[in-house]
Amino acid sequence: MITVLRLGHRPGRDKRITTHVALVARCLGADRMIITRKDEELAERVKNVAEKFGGDFRIEFQQNWHELLRKPDWVKVHLTMYGERLSDAIPRIPKDRDLVVIVGAEKVPSFVYEMADFNVAVGNQPHSEVAALALFLDRYTEGKWEKEEMAGRLKIIPSDRGKKVVRVR
Amino acid sequence: MITVLRLGHRPGRDKRITTHVALVARCLGADRMIITRKDEELAERVKNVAEKFGGDFRIEFQQNWHELLRKPDWVKVHLTMYGERLSDAIPRIPKDRDLVVIVGAEKVPSFVYEMADFNVAVGNQPHSEVAALALFLDRYTEGKWEKEEMAGRLKIIPSDRGKKVVRVR
Repeated sequence: MITVLRLGHRPGRDKRITTHVALVARCLGADRMIITRKDEELAERVKNVAEKFGGDFRIEFQQNWHELLRKPDWVKVHLTMYGERLSDAIPRIPKDRDLVVIVGAEKVPSFVYEMADFNVAVGNQPHSEVAALALFLDRYTEGKWEKEEMAGRLKIIPSDRGKKVVRVR
Repeated sequence: MITVLRLGHRPGRDKRITTHVALVARCLGADRMIITRKDEELAERVKNVAEKFGGDFRIEFQQNWHELLRKPDWVKVHLTMYGERLSDAIPRIPKDRDLVVIVGAEKVPSFVYEMADFNVAVGNQPHSEVAALALFLDRYTEGKWEKEEMAGRLKIIPSDRGKKVVRVR
């Protein structure tokens, strides 16, 4: 199971970015995203996408997220521009265990750096946690997300011009 | 040269997402981002990052963006979830010509689909233009962005714990 833990989400300010984080997580093979502050509107929006376009991706709230970082059998990856290089880290990250990917909104407490098994930088440059998550999951899943079918009510048919959407059921 | 054309940027509503688009463009090897409505605050913010962390990335305003789509010698790639699969398109996109990557904020006019040489879907699922741009540029540059040095005033040293930042000059 792949869990994305979105730290420090502020419902007003971060709604759009956290929505992008959630949709990227879903599209690139994660099973759920945990946010640490309730945001029903966000959860509803993502649920609507999953209902239309398929898959079991869900959003959960968990205030007590410290516990997740203490699970001894999970692999804990923290995405930060200060971390080690993605290409150095990826070959060493176990793939046969549950994974939690930690993605911060505001400043991440320093103990997260300590508790993570891997602090990984997707480029040692300031950019975007949305992009960092996408590139990390792409490498971790070895690009398999692109071939996944999600079996929703609607399906987009790849097309070199225009829009082809079919209603599946 | 790689140009990112951000269509439909609305200075109030889209500031954060467009900032992410710009920083991703910069980090993954684009030379500039063109926005179609003036947003000095956004340009200033991105300029500050480039001054600190290096590189020549810049933001330009161009109302008359239709012209860019008429340049016959440019390769025009439009990122849309309705497009053909990334892995199908990438081998056919010429790399020896200037490239413009079109990334929409609001709904993109249908003539953009017509004028683009390639309409490319980074996953035929709704997710994020920030992630789509990152994955596209990653494939297009064959991951070379990760090894690039940008030679700014500050440099982040990859580290498995904590934060290492050095002042270069």
